[in-house]
Amino acid sequence: RIMRPDDANIAGNVHGGTILKMIEEAGAIISPRHCNSQAGEPCVAALARVERTDFLSPMCIGEVANVSAEITYTSRHSVEVQVNVMSENILTGAKKVTNKATLWYVPLSLKNVNKVLEVPPIQYARKEQEDEGKKRYEEQKLDRLETKQRNGDVILPVINPEPHTVGYSQSSLIHLVGPSDCTLLGFVHGGVTMKLMDEVAGIVAARHCKTNIVTASVDAINFHEKIKKGCVITVSGRMTFTSNKSMEIEVFVDADPFVDEPRERYRAVSAFFTYVSLSKEGKPLAVPQLLTETEDEKRRFEEGKGRYLQTKAKRQAQMQQAAQQ
Amino acid sequence: RIMRPDDANIAGNVHGGTILKMIEEAGAIISPRHCNSQAGEPCVAALARVERTDFLSPMCIGEVANVSAEITYTSRHSVEVQVNVMSENILTGAKKVTNKATLWYVPLSLKNVNKVLEVPPIQYARKEQEDEGKKRYEEQKLDRLETKQRNGDVILPVINPEPHTVGYSQSSLIHLVGPSDCTLLGFVHGGVTMKLMDEVAGIVAARHCKTNIVTASVDAINFHEKIKKGCVITVSGRMTFTSNKSMEIEVFVDADPFVDEPRERYRAVSAFFTYVSLSKEGKPLAVPQLLTETEDEKRRFEEGKGRYLQTKAKRQAQMQQAAQQ
Amino acid sequence: RIMRPDDANIAGNVHGGTILKMIEEAGAIISPRHCNSQAGEPCVAALARVERTDFLSPMCIGEVANVSAEITYTSRHSVEVQVNVMSENILTGAKKVTNKATLWYVPLSLKNVNKVLEVPPIQYARKEQEDEGKKRYEEQKLDRLETKQRNGDVILPVINPEPHTVGYSQSSLIHLVGPSDCTLLGFVHGGVTMKLMDEVAGIVAARHCKTNIVTASVDAINFHEKIKKGCVITVSGRMTFTSNKSMEIEVFVDADPFVDEPRERYRAVSAFFTYVSLSKEGKPLAVPQLLTETEDEKRRFEEGKGRYLQTKAKRQAQMQQAAQQ
Repeated sequence: RIMRPDDANIAGNVHGGTILKMIEEAGAIISPRHCNSQAGEPCVAALARVERTDFLSPMCIGEVANVSAEITYTSRHSVEVQVNVMSENILTGAKKVTNKATLWYVPLSLKNVNKVLEVPPIQYARKEQEDEGKKRYEEQKLDRLETKQRNGDVILPVINPEPHTVGYSQSSLIHLVGPSDCTLLGFVHGGVTMKLMDEVAGIVAARHCKTNIVTASVDAINFHEKIKKGCVITVSGRMTFTSNKSMEIEVFVDADPFVDEPRERYRAVSAFFTYVSLSKEGKPLAVPQLLTETEDEKRRFEEGKGRYLQTKAKRQAQMQQAAQQ
Repeated sequence: RIMRPDDANIAGNVHGGTILKMIEEAGAIISPRHCNSQAGEPCVAALARVERTDFLSPMCIGEVANVSAEITYTSRHSVEVQVNVMSENILTGAKKVTNKATLWYVPLSLKNVNKVLEVPPIQYARKEQEDEGKKRYEEQKLDRLETKQRNGDVILPVINPEPHTVGYSQSSLIHLVGPSDCTLLGFVHGGVTMKLMDEVAGIVAARHCKTNIVTASVDAINFHEKIKKGCVITVSGRMTFTSNKSMEIEVFVDADPFVDEPRERYRAVSAFFTYVSLSKEGKPLAVPQLLTETEDEKRRFEEGKGRYLQTKAKRQAQMQQAAQQ
Repeated sequence: RIMRPDDANIAGNVHGGTILKMIEEAGAIISPRHCNSQAGEPCVAALARVERTDFLSPMCIGEVANVSAEITYTSRHSVEVQVNVMSENILTGAKKVTNKATLWYVPLSLKNVNKVLEVPPIQYARKEQEDEGKKRYEEQKLDRLETKQRNGDVILPVINPEPHTVGYSQSSLIHLVGPSDCTLLGFVHGGVTMKLMDEVAGIVAARHCKTNIVTASVDAINFHEKIKKGCVITVSGRMTFTSNKSMEIEVFVDADPFVDEPRERYRAVSAFFTYVSLSKEGKPLAVPQLLTETEDEKRRFEEGKGRYLQTKAKRQAQMQQAAQQ
């Protein structure tokens, strides 16, 4: 698909959220196709988790995004999908790896949306592939449980905040879930949610540094609960950490099922986005340091620093790998 | 244009904002066409004001909206456009008047966006038409000035509000202005702004009464300042008044030109929207009374009551007129 | 790509226009990729013509459209692209051929939009492939010239028309060409134009027979002139012919470059669309006969009948071919 002005910011860089949405669409096609490949109850697949993903190089308006997807592991009730995105400049023919993402889907019965179905097993070329897949499966299961527990936080408004404080750049948007945001079963596509999350994170980052910013990476995203058509969702973001040249933003998605269903607002998704600021020549710029005021803000800053140092090594390895391809 | 699922709420009623956007598109086509009809500097037209408009009957998915526009008055620097919207059920052939709106545009030079150009005068069939137009022109000019003065209010967040208070339903969204929101000159289309305003007002109304709601009318909207591509706009709404069967919501649009231009956030637009709650059969329902707490809330409630009583008579007259057509 | 509610009519059948848009996007990716494959001036490709295409089976919401494209012939200045569309039901795994379309593109220089570039020749597996391609090339060239000549007609409004006359169902819409409708060079994507044409043709068909209608085929579409960003386009449609179970609608696209360029309105595209009316079970229904009143209407009806009888044989052959796959 050709990238259009609507997919990009005013500097011409395609929004990370547009790419996340394409990645999820690929997963949402390949996983029910697999699950429905054997006779049995028809199903749709619900996105349960997206593993950490890096944006290795920015994509621009006019380039073509090539998305390919493959099923790499199946547990009894879930499917792991590997999605690769390449950007292709059709004027020069140049191709670059833009993203590699891993998504987990759970098949739900078309007739009864609360019933999780069984996944037909895939064949592995080598025994090690199955073992590695199983390891990834166990790790993400554990992480999903942990995230669910530390998920009660809310973003409180701040009156007249100082520049570069957390309160200065924090932002939120509301969105009424319409029919075209939803799957056949009437639940919001994971890709739609991720695009809104990237939009809010991008506004937080731009408010903080007031320059052209792009998504550098997204931490693992867990989809704790489905969001139904007709809900109002509130997507809120606050900055948690800055390094010399990157900003980490925590994003929450809360759903408010206010029509029809008398139910309380609930936390549906949360994740960390990392942004960098780019000069007109596309070079990373220094970003202003985040000013932390409260104890909670200082604690979150230290936690963010931990994540930053941990993933810095990993990211450098991946960049080298991508450069060699 | 056929109304699609995305144009409507989950009950199938087309959003007032979608209709406002179509109305403005018609005005944005006819007014520069007129202003460019004579040799001279090429221009685009900027929306300056929309007169109060009533939604006479709801439009539904699958119906065709017919929009017609006509220039009814020209002053030296502005154009008055009358737009009519009819809904047509193409299966039964039934047609209904949905809206009548009056818009004011100002022509700006394509080369220098701060230069207001002169408008070629139109010919009037009768002298009275010109006189009546001039009267409407003077009235709106006065009203625009007045609105500009009482425009400094902000919506402050409330922690843990009680149901049916102002704080309980107040809502805001942020939107990053993208290329397809804008005119050729890089300014946000008035119709895009009005659609977002209706979206926020609708969420406030739905949060208050938790039923299916539709736009009944929009008070005069003044566009005080242009909003540029790349701005973040914050659209906030709060309930100001409830009658037995209607809710009045005040909506503000603030623009934040944070990239490129180091300028303070400014109030770009403000307006009052009136909503009604509909049963499944399309009958108006009673709405919960708004609980006012502060002195300001009580004052705004009384002001809203004034507007309500004033327009009640007018609206009834219009309904009768529409019923006779 | 998964088909969503917005891609379809209220009966769930995907609009022919959505499919035409996807077909054109595939062509708009593959043809510049080919033309830029050799060192030389970089180019984009402008859609010059779409050959007659049949909609072999309707596509529904929730199905996945698989679009594949291949270059089948190159002349000195044009590229022929063959695009196939398959619909896939990911719940049942069933696949059906939906469309086969042939498109012609002309490469234009990125630096000078009025300069047509040369196309690198492709290799043919067999000599006959080249000869057949050359024959198709000559035929379409001739047809393009002919269409250009008989292109001056306009659709005049009719007051109080009788049901089933031409004036009763004729329709038109205007659209302001925005940035996201356009290519890198600022010209409207052919697919965007075709989608609007299908929308108008669908409204004409629904007004005539007042039932659920779907696109059955589109006659060859010639793109006589490019349409620039900022133009207003008027898309008009009128019924020209009815058989027992089909309706033929002629659609015109006129462009009005009222900003920037002081140029007269011009005819940019014209084509014939054929629609059928479907029952709730998806069976074709009888359609009311078109009542022709003027000499021109009677002549156009006879011409339509000629096209109908001519293509009936071809279509039956294609249906049989598709049924065998």
